[in-house]
Amino acid sequence: MADKPRIVIVGGGFGGIKIAKLFAKENVDITLVDRHNFHLFQPLLYQVSTSVLAEDEIAYPIRTFFRDNKNVNFFMAKAQGVDQERNVLITNHGEIPYDYLILAAGATTNFFGMKEVEEKAYGMKTIQEAIHIRNHVLHEFERASKPYRTPEDRRKRMTFVVAGGGPTGVEEAGALTELIDVQKKEIHNLDFNDVQVILIEATPRVLPMMPEDLQKETVRVLEKKGVRVMLDTQVVGYDGDVLKLKSGAEIPTTTVIWAAGVRAVDFMNNCGGENARDGRLMIEENLMVKGAVNKNVFAIGDCACFMHGDMKRPLPTVAPVATQEAVVCHKNIMKLIKGDTNLEKFVYKDLGAMATIGRGQAVVGHPRMTGFLAWCAWMFVHLIRLAGAHTNLTVAIKWTWNLFSGIRLGRIITNMKL
Amino acid sequence: MADKPRIVIVGGGFGGIKIAKLFAKENVDITLVDRHNFHLFQPLLYQVSTSVLAEDEIAYPIRTFFRDNKNVNFFMAKAQGVDQERNVLITNHGEIPYDYLILAAGATTNFFGMKEVEEKAYGMKTIQEAIHIRNHVLHEFERASKPYRTPEDRRKRMTFVVAGGGPTGVEEAGALTELIDVQKKEIHNLDFNDVQVILIEATPRVLPMMPEDLQKETVRVLEKKGVRVMLDTQVVGYDGDVLKLKSGAEIPTTTVIWAAGVRAVDFMNNCGGENARDGRLMIEENLMVKGAVNKNVFAIGDCACFMHGDMKRPLPTVAPVATQEAVVCHKNIMKLIKGDTNLEKFVYKDLGAMATIGRGQAVVGHPRMTGFLAWCAWMFVHLIRLAGAHTNLTVAIKWTWNLFSGIRLGRIITNMKL
Repeated sequence: MADKPRIVIVGGGFGGIKIAKLFAKENVDITLVDRHNFHLFQPLLYQVSTSVLAEDEIAYPIRTFFRDNKNVNFFMAKAQGVDQERNVLITNHGEIPYDYLILAAGATTNFFGMKEVEEKAYGMKTIQEAIHIRNHVLHEFERASKPYRTPEDRRKRMTFVVAGGGPTGVEEAGALTELIDVQKKEIHNLDFNDVQVILIEATPRVLPMMPEDLQKETVRVLEKKGVRVMLDTQVVGYDGDVLKLKSGAEIPTTTVIWAAGVRAVDFMNNCGGENARDGRLMIEENLMVKGAVNKNVFAIGDCACFMHGDMKRPLPTVAPVATQEAVVCHKNIMKLIKGDTNLEKFVYKDLGAMATIGRGQAVVGHPRMTGFLAWCAWMFVHLIRLAGAHTNLTVAIKWTWNLFSGIRLGRIITNMKL
Repeated sequence: MADKPRIVIVGGGFGGIKIAKLFAKENVDITLVDRHNFHLFQPLLYQVSTSVLAEDEIAYPIRTFFRDNKNVNFFMAKAQGVDQERNVLITNHGEIPYDYLILAAGATTNFFGMKEVEEKAYGMKTIQEAIHIRNHVLHEFERASKPYRTPEDRRKRMTFVVAGGGPTGVEEAGALTELIDVQKKEIHNLDFNDVQVILIEATPRVLPMMPEDLQKETVRVLEKKGVRVMLDTQVVGYDGDVLKLKSGAEIPTTTVIWAAGVRAVDFMNNCGGENARDGRLMIEENLMVKGAVNKNVFAIGDCACFMHGDMKRPLPTVAPVATQEAVVCHKNIMKLIKGDTNLEKFVYKDLGAMATIGRGQAVVGHPRMTGFLAWCAWMFVHLIRLAGAHTNLTVAIKWTWNLFSGIRLGRIITNMKL
């Protein structure tokens, strides 16, 4: 072991940043590895994709978190594997030796093996994907407004499909209808009867983590906003022009936003551990990777599969799981550093779920709230968690402005295809 | 002629937006053509390239200006030529017939025929170019901080050259030193003695439009901020690795930002007019394109070459020229519509120049001001001209925040190269 224990953390998401902050106060050397130079506030990604917020309002430079922590080093690179025998993390910028390794690498979109869908549909997990969606959707409005379009072509471009009825899908569909309301006021020569948003969900219900009455309320609000909600509907293919459903029905559309599932990032398969069906690394109750050779590799958050006691399925891929795991993981590694092998077992405390359906509309599971009150709670919770005091202020201004005026200034197309 | 006169405007810059707003109140049909869906506040582009502002704070959706003007149609397309005989504008999305045509297509970067420089250096005229610079500069810091770099490689990546001592070059160089100050606080393992900003200007002076004492003051302030100012220095080549000067000297650098000249966009050569050496269309004193076949084609702003009376050189490519020309051009076309061929001659009223050199530092030519007072004046003038009340507010917050804290939250790398 070097002078100070070398802690290496993979991933600057909610879990990675949290545990790096905890270790920053200890007498250890920390290397935080991420392929992006920023922490992304993923729950608000849909607002970037629908022109409400700018990129830099939900992305925060990782180095800024650790400005005053000289023992924290940021290393921008793509993690590729772990050699547990040699205690090194392998990246595209070389190897990084560790005494303790924490994998907090997150999740990516799950297309369930449908290659063509993966190629043609839009994922929504990264800032680049959100920007792609924004550019594409705005561009389709410009294309549809050209006088030489056939009605079929125009309708196809003006049909926006969101696949997946979880919080991301519901929020995206709701936000799209509001973007359309804004476009309606400004594109004088387009027939908006052609414009529609469709939300497709494979199961009979949206927002699986919510009580049934709130699920129904969510569908009601979405439909009132103009979203066509198709439950019990499975996607079997998409070629960029026509979306194929299991029923045999087809929907002509140039836009499919895929929010129907997540899986662990591919790198998890090269970590020397045991992978669950969705690629997540199996972990012990103390958060150590199952079968860790030197008992010094841990995994937390979306990339880890925690399923112990009488749990019927793994913990959900949400921020509170990652941050709560970070706290216990930090404690356990500090115990090991001090020679104490009596590690703490992780117990998840469910804080309830919330989702916004649009301007002034949300559902909150616990305590149970709907409508404007729920939206205020949603706004408050997300605002206080955004990194950077100055960001909170500008985002608060934008949201308030947006609530009253319905104007969206973020509608700029930054790619150059014409 | 159709029911209403058809006014076609090419370009949504300062001139194009201004004249479209004037025509919007008349009994005419307007088509505004631009290859971008937004109006760009170009004077602040350097702030996007140096992570101070976000894209959507200096880009404003063109359609939003004309929300309440049903007679204004936006047509997103790239203008390719004008057939003056047939009275049609040719675009990549088909032809647009006009009764009156206003060319306000702006300018692009002038690399003075140096193809290799054009390929390897960064232009700074579009939002995409500013984003490219931001991504590249931030990325070079991450690359330079990798432990395996040789000192030569590191120094090359940490040498930022700005070519051109006009307002854009001066502002960019000043802003880069401030970005470096922020990075210095956060990249703990990089030797900042290796980091330098060089401003290269071919003539013996910066800011040609300023009085001599303010030019000297500008150089003094830049040097105090750590910029190496090289006057009387001409670039003759750049291969992406080494910048070659006329003197034979070479500067190893991976970053050359080219702000050394502008020329009219290529499309100006296909408008059936007479082009000046820098590509700008020659115009009459009444702003009509010289030799206009049907006396119905006008040009204003950066794409037009106005040189009449005792002027020794054409009017400068600045916003006030474009907006003042827009006013006279609108009047003259309205006269023609009403059958009056006695057109007004354009006279430019010079409102003086200003440039910011960095946080709390600027020079203003008229009334003469320097330092913090000049910076406040600069900030005020730019704030009131930004489109959208809500933008003014968030930009004011960012600038104030930036002035006191020196934090730059915009430092996110949004491209994916690793």
